[in-house]
Amino acid sequence: MSDNRHNLKPAELEALEREPTFSTDLICTYKDHMGDDDAILEAMLVSTQDSEMAEDLEKYKRSRQPRLDFMMAHKHGSPFEQASIKLYVKAPIMVFREWHRHRIGFSYNEASARYKVMPPEFYIAPPERPLIQEGKHSNPTWVPADHATYVAYLADQQAVAQFAWDRYVHQVRDLGIAKESARAVLGVGLYSDMITTLNPRSCMAFLSLRQHHPDAAFVSHPQWEINQCANHMEQIFKELFPLTHMLFVQNGRVAP
Amino acid sequence: MSDNRHNLKPAELEALEREPTFSTDLICTYKDHMGDDDAILEAMLVSTQDSEMAEDLEKYKRSRQPRLDFMMAHKHGSPFEQASIKLYVKAPIMVFREWHRHRIGFSYNEASARYKVMPPEFYIAPPERPLIQEGKHSNPTWVPADHATYVAYLADQQAVAQFAWDRYVHQVRDLGIAKESARAVLGVGLYSDMITTLNPRSCMAFLSLRQHHPDAAFVSHPQWEINQCANHMEQIFKELFPLTHMLFVQNGRVAP
Amino acid sequence: MSDNRHNLKPAELEALEREPTFSTDLICTYKDHMGDDDAILEAMLVSTQDSEMAEDLEKYKRSRQPRLDFMMAHKHGSPFEQASIKLYVKAPIMVFREWHRHRIGFSYNEASARYKVMPPEFYIAPPERPLIQEGKHSNPTWVPADHATYVAYLADQQAVAQFAWDRYVHQVRDLGIAKESARAVLGVGLYSDMITTLNPRSCMAFLSLRQHHPDAAFVSHPQWEINQCANHMEQIFKELFPLTHMLFVQNGRVAP
Amino acid sequence: MSDNRHNLKPAELEALEREPTFSTDLICTYKDHMGDDDAILEAMLVSTQDSEMAEDLEKYKRSRQPRLDFMMAHKHGSPFEQASIKLYVKAPIMVFREWHRHRIGFSYNEASARYKVMPPEFYIAPPERPLIQEGKHSNPTWVPADHATYVAYLADQQAVAQFAWDRYVHQVRDLGIAKESARAVLGVGLYSDMITTLNPRSCMAFLSLRQHHPDAAFVSHPQWEINQCANHMEQIFKELFPLTHMLFVQNGRVAP
Repeated sequence: MSDNRHNLKPAELEALEREPTFSTDLICTYKDHMGDDDAILEAMLVSTQDSEMAEDLEKYKRSRQPRLDFMMAHKHGSPFEQASIKLYVKAPIMVFREWHRHRIGFSYNEASARYKVMPPEFYIAPPERPLIQEGKHSNPTWVPADHATYVAYLADQQAVAQFAWDRYVHQVRDLGIAKESARAVLGVGLYSDMITTLNPRSCMAFLSLRQHHPDAAFVSHPQWEINQCANHMEQIFKELFPLTHMLFVQNGRVAP
Repeated sequence: MSDNRHNLKPAELEALEREPTFSTDLICTYKDHMGDDDAILEAMLVSTQDSEMAEDLEKYKRSRQPRLDFMMAHKHGSPFEQASIKLYVKAPIMVFREWHRHRIGFSYNEASARYKVMPPEFYIAPPERPLIQEGKHSNPTWVPADHATYVAYLADQQAVAQFAWDRYVHQVRDLGIAKESARAVLGVGLYSDMITTLNPRSCMAFLSLRQHHPDAAFVSHPQWEINQCANHMEQIFKELFPLTHMLFVQNGRVAP
Repeated sequence: MSDNRHNLKPAELEALEREPTFSTDLICTYKDHMGDDDAILEAMLVSTQDSEMAEDLEKYKRSRQPRLDFMMAHKHGSPFEQASIKLYVKAPIMVFREWHRHRIGFSYNEASARYKVMPPEFYIAPPERPLIQEGKHSNPTWVPADHATYVAYLADQQAVAQFAWDRYVHQVRDLGIAKESARAVLGVGLYSDMITTLNPRSCMAFLSLRQHHPDAAFVSHPQWEINQCANHMEQIFKELFPLTHMLFVQNGRVAP
Repeated sequence: MSDNRHNLKPAELEALEREPTFSTDLICTYKDHMGDDDAILEAMLVSTQDSEMAEDLEKYKRSRQPRLDFMMAHKHGSPFEQASIKLYVKAPIMVFREWHRHRIGFSYNEASARYKVMPPEFYIAPPERPLIQEGKHSNPTWVPADHATYVAYLADQQAVAQFAWDRYVHQVRDLGIAKESARAVLGVGLYSDMITTLNPRSCMAFLSLRQHHPDAAFVSHPQWEINQCANHMEQIFKELFPLTHMLFVQNGRVAP
């Protein structure tokens, strides 16, 4: 039986000493961006106006709203790609599993459980999260758990997290098992984090699928956790591109 | 405390009755395909020959190998996209996590732990899998575990799988917790499965990154499990596109 | 003044001897495909059913239509990527300019005016093509030209094609100018051709933008020529995937 | 015979009055950007370091070069996507035809000859441009034209441009033919312009294919005109991401 400690960085050895912690956090925060509503307008104008439109951008701003609305409504999507948004996300692995299915207009760098000891931080759904599925399988509705059920849920989640973490530490520290193999016991409720770059178009495609709005033109039923992340994303999008966001909402939350 | 059983399909109720099973399988099998080496040749010829080349394809076949070799060596990649390969994959979630980072030229449909009770099938690394990391962090090497260590690894993995599965069943069946929330306790060693469609170019990009060949032009260090899947993929690729495969290997396993 | 003839292939020398020909053809024909409506159904089932669904595919076929309709209506697009369609297209360069803006789910190999003498085949709009723009710039309508105007259009198009072709031949054959430079005089009405591979999802995205249907959920105003190509594409799509096509139409021609 | 002038904007009517102008310009200029070498480093660190690395970014900067070099050399490409570059490009249509084949990590908005009268600005290769192809077809070399040949080339190019422009104006202004149809006579030497957004990874993929460097690991033979644009792009890339650029060059100009 070998000892893997000499293979581990100090921060990893420290992580292995920690006890599991539990949180309801679902974090999606602003890192950086390029462009604004006018950048989208300018990209659009290159198709129809003189190449000197850059100097004349001011004069076109008066017609900015109807022009962008036309692009949104008629699914002329390319001008909405001419800007960038960079975000930091911290969420359980099960959220990342869904997020990474968005292939186009998204770049990802995520924590690697091959290359680092993952800290023992586990996601727990908050009491207000609708945990109980009611109705038929084909048409489910969701309601929050009553207090006793929530407490039982919490106990199950925490017991497994604690048990799995202890066996993970045992494998990595005491048996010398590679992190990439030991990690198989860690549940998809473990937190991970990433940096992701997207653009307004891919942002709207994400929001249209990962938010539930009963009045949207196409109603989605995303998992509650990724919906929370999408809500944070929408706030950042709204602050950076207020006109584009408004027109997205007015056009039924359909991505152009 | 509600009872969720009426929300579950018979196959799901049956799955909840099962005891965890463990396997070393890493499955990647042929489902369907379109095209062959000649289809790649034909796509290439449209760039340089008469549009009637389709009728004359036979005459160009004599020069097929040098032509495809030229495309491969000079990174003219587009003809290698004009064919399709469809595969079925069964592997632990940790493999899917890596696989789904391939965004271009890959389509995915995977089992959803939101919509179905996942069967209690867990991956275990086989004894010959190098489980122990040796050497420095920046330059690790890997060796198989000795028998005692392997047995201890196995015990840890199986104990957590059993513990997590019991708490998952308790949540879903007895507490009525939604499958999508209960699943947070299931480890990334749980098996999932998918259908994926790719093309020879994205196949070669995958192989170049997910196989370890010390003599490749760019040497990769993939996780052992996805490397096994890539080996299966390579066999299928080789059978369907023998000439393209041979030239890929001869050109240092660099994707065009 | 050099002579480039020794650099040219026999087929190129032959092309340089040709006189311009004119055609109204817009060709988009079937080359190959993978999969059918059941393949889409099967890909979808992997998300929700047992992994043994392959054997049970027959039993699910009874519910095939509502299942695929649900995917289409709720924009679950990925199963519609698990099949392939390969087409041959012959159209003027201006159509290729629009077509190649479709980046996702499309592979292209097109004739190269760098590597071959392009044959002197030029597109002419047929008399029934609405050539005349009426109404305001922001809300145009189109009507066919009267006979005299069409004849004048034809004369202009043919005169330029002939003049440009003669100067192209002069440069390539008599001056020894590289094909890639001489081609600058050839208009975007010159025919080119390509092989392209797509999938049902990218096919529907193309059709939704490149066909004009007044009753579509999102009405597009594509150029008439690419609309003709899209009509041919739709016929092929309909024959290969009749159920998917029907549901696409019933759902307002919105790509999932 | 109708008169289309009321359908045209003042700027379009003005363009129709212009005489053709000729230029050797190939323009690719900076518009905007997001991120720098440290942003790439930070994205990379999220995979291997504590999530608090943002605060500690300073301490990792000492090892910035070997870390980025490792990513570059081992084709870990994703961190190089976590930044953006926006460019303005003015070049002949034949360059755009090649450029738009880059589908991944590129967004485009180009002047539309459907929606605007294109100004009569035509590209002419400068005398130093190797216009003459020598050697065998399979292994060509290129040399500049002698003076007489260049003058003859110039005369051919200008004569066709003038002839085509006159017939374009006649169709649009006098016959009332739609711009989208009249444009078929305009050659691929006509200037167009666009705004494009890319990232360092797609930038390096472009440079690796669209620049000729005899000492590159994979030698490309791009058309001279797009190579000039790529040279401008490289200068912008080098100024914005000097370390990434240096490592790209040192690693044989292979895109990670």
